[in-house]
Amino acid sequence: MLVLVKRLSTQQPKRPLIVLQKSLNKNVIVKLKNDIEYRGRMNNVDSYMNLILEDAEEFNGETHLANYGKVVIRGNNVLFIQIASEI
Amino acid sequence: MLVLVKRLSTQQPKRPLIVLQKSLNKNVIVKLKNDIEYRGRMNNVDSYMNLILEDAEEFNGETHLANYGKVVIRGNNVLFIQIASEI
Amino acid sequence: MLVLVKRLSTQQPKRPLIVLQKSLNKNVIVKLKNDIEYRGRMNNVDSYMNLILEDAEEFNGETHLANYGKVVIRGNNVLFIQIASEI
Amino acid sequence: MLVLVKRLSTQQPKRPLIVLQKSLNKNVIVKLKNDIEYRGRMNNVDSYMNLILEDAEEFNGETHLANYGKVVIRGNNVLFIQIASEI
Amino acid sequence: MLVLVKRLSTQQPKRPLIVLQKSLNKNVIVKLKNDIEYRGRMNNVDSYMNLILEDAEEFNGETHLANYGKVVIRGNNVLFIQIASEI
Amino acid sequence: MLVLVKRLSTQQPKRPLIVLQKSLNKNVIVKLKNDIEYRGRMNNVDSYMNLILEDAEEFNGETHLANYGKVVIRGNNVLFIQIASEI
Amino acid sequence: MLVLVKRLSTQQPKRPLIVLQKSLNKNVIVKLKNDIEYRGRMNNVDSYMNLILEDAEEFNGETHLANYGKVVIRGNNVLFIQIASEI
Repeated sequence: MLVLVKRLSTQQPKRPLIVLQKSLNKNVIVKLKNDIEYRGRMNNVDSYMNLILEDAEEFNGETHLANYGKVVIRGNNVLFIQIASEI
Repeated sequence: MLVLVKRLSTQQPKRPLIVLQKSLNKNVIVKLKNDIEYRGRMNNVDSYMNLILEDAEEFNGETHLANYGKVVIRGNNVLFIQIASEI
Repeated sequence: MLVLVKRLSTQQPKRPLIVLQKSLNKNVIVKLKNDIEYRGRMNNVDSYMNLILEDAEEFNGETHLANYGKVVIRGNNVLFIQIASEI
Repeated sequence: MLVLVKRLSTQQPKRPLIVLQKSLNKNVIVKLKNDIEYRGRMNNVDSYMNLILEDAEEFNGETHLANYGKVVIRGNNVLFIQIASEI
Repeated sequence: MLVLVKRLSTQQPKRPLIVLQKSLNKNVIVKLKNDIEYRGRMNNVDSYMNLILEDAEEFNGETHLANYGKVVIRGNNVLFIQIASEI
Repeated sequence: MLVLVKRLSTQQPKRPLIVLQKSLNKNVIVKLKNDIEYRGRMNNVDSYMNLILEDAEEFNGETHLANYGKVVIRGNNVLFIQIASEI
Repeated sequence: MLVLVKRLSTQQPKRPLIVLQKSLNKNVIVKLKNDIEYRGRMNNVDSYMNLILEDAEEFNGETHLANYGKVVIRGNNVLFIQIASEI
């Protein structure tokens, strides 16, 4: 019983990853640690924040740098992910 | 019995994360390692300090840089989180 | 039963790595954290994003730097991997 | 029996964290890797050195930078923690 | 049965390390994160990319810096390993 | 039997940490990655090289910077620890 | 049986650490990520490449900087270890 309670209670702190999972196919802005932004549709994401971005565009601030199509971004480079409805 | 005691005793050092959990929906200032601050309502946070910030505003010191709406910040970038009642 | 459900549900967040696995032998552009790009055929990749690149060419932006043949890139250096059909 | 012995012997090297636990509610100076110091009352700390600081003041050397009230500092940024009776 | 299937399927993504294992005693160029290259015969390598290099020569680009004989390189410094038949 | 043999054989490579444990209450010089040295009596140390230093003095080369009394240094910042009889 | 086979096959990639173990009490040159070298007798080493160096001398290139006697170097700082017979 205690174990079950613990399981339930430890699920709550995982929410940021669940929010990301519920935002699949939304437009996102992914800011990396090197300050470059990638804007596109978040096709998928895992618990490490590795993510697939489709129709990805690369920006340095407001300066458009490149179009990348489909890219897989390695999660450890992510600073933050801004989700679609807020863009 | 020993195992149970250990479980109880090892819960105490986890408190900083518990304090964060009890501060959901409070206003926070999140300072990142790159010295940029994000101010907003902490919608959720996990044990890695990944956190969801709503109505997020980006500051460099007192200079307002941008509004971001809802962002998911990757925990490994966090320097510290200042909780609402102290802001 | 619960355990089975959990297994199924935790497979979804792994997708970025599955997408990489399904892109074997496609041309990719691998951008590393030091901003250098390696273009070539992705012979294989593992869950750490260690990858084998064949006919690898090294670029700094559009400047061709070197040809490397077959290289094994250590995954922790990867910023992102752009997959073939989008190049 | 061997397992028990091992448990006992491996508890000794954990002492720095136990010393921190026994210093709760003492005044501390926390020096971070970025050379900034936070002085305040250590409300709690976990094994990762995540810590809660109350009445926190930020210093760059002897220059007072800001008052922060209650902050949760992420442990991986910590360089060292100086404990109260020695301040 | 499910477990067996999983084992088989998770072996494939490990291939970059298997390729390295099959290249023992070949000449390699190991480029480190600090941009220095070590050329020599790869006597052995482990899953962390720790590797033993024999008759190792140190280069900065095309500039020969030093001869090192047998060195053990710590894997986390490796940027990429270029395997012999492609040198 | 095999398991027992493995246990014995894997204990040997742990020796640097055992040497540290046997040096408790000796004077040490702890050099951190930021090139600053802390000299004092090593009250305790754990397997992560978190350590407690008493009567700690901070040096930049031969320049005395500060006295710190008792400090807990986070192990990941340690470059090396020089043990007393050699100081 | 399968498990046994796996065990045997996964022992091979560990060899760089075994080579280090077989080089105890040989003279080594340890180059750290900060480009400083430590030359001395490798008294012991563990799987993390934490190592004990006796009669340690510190060099910046060919410039002798200091004598350190016995030091425990934290493994994560190691770039490479050059073993005695090749010095």
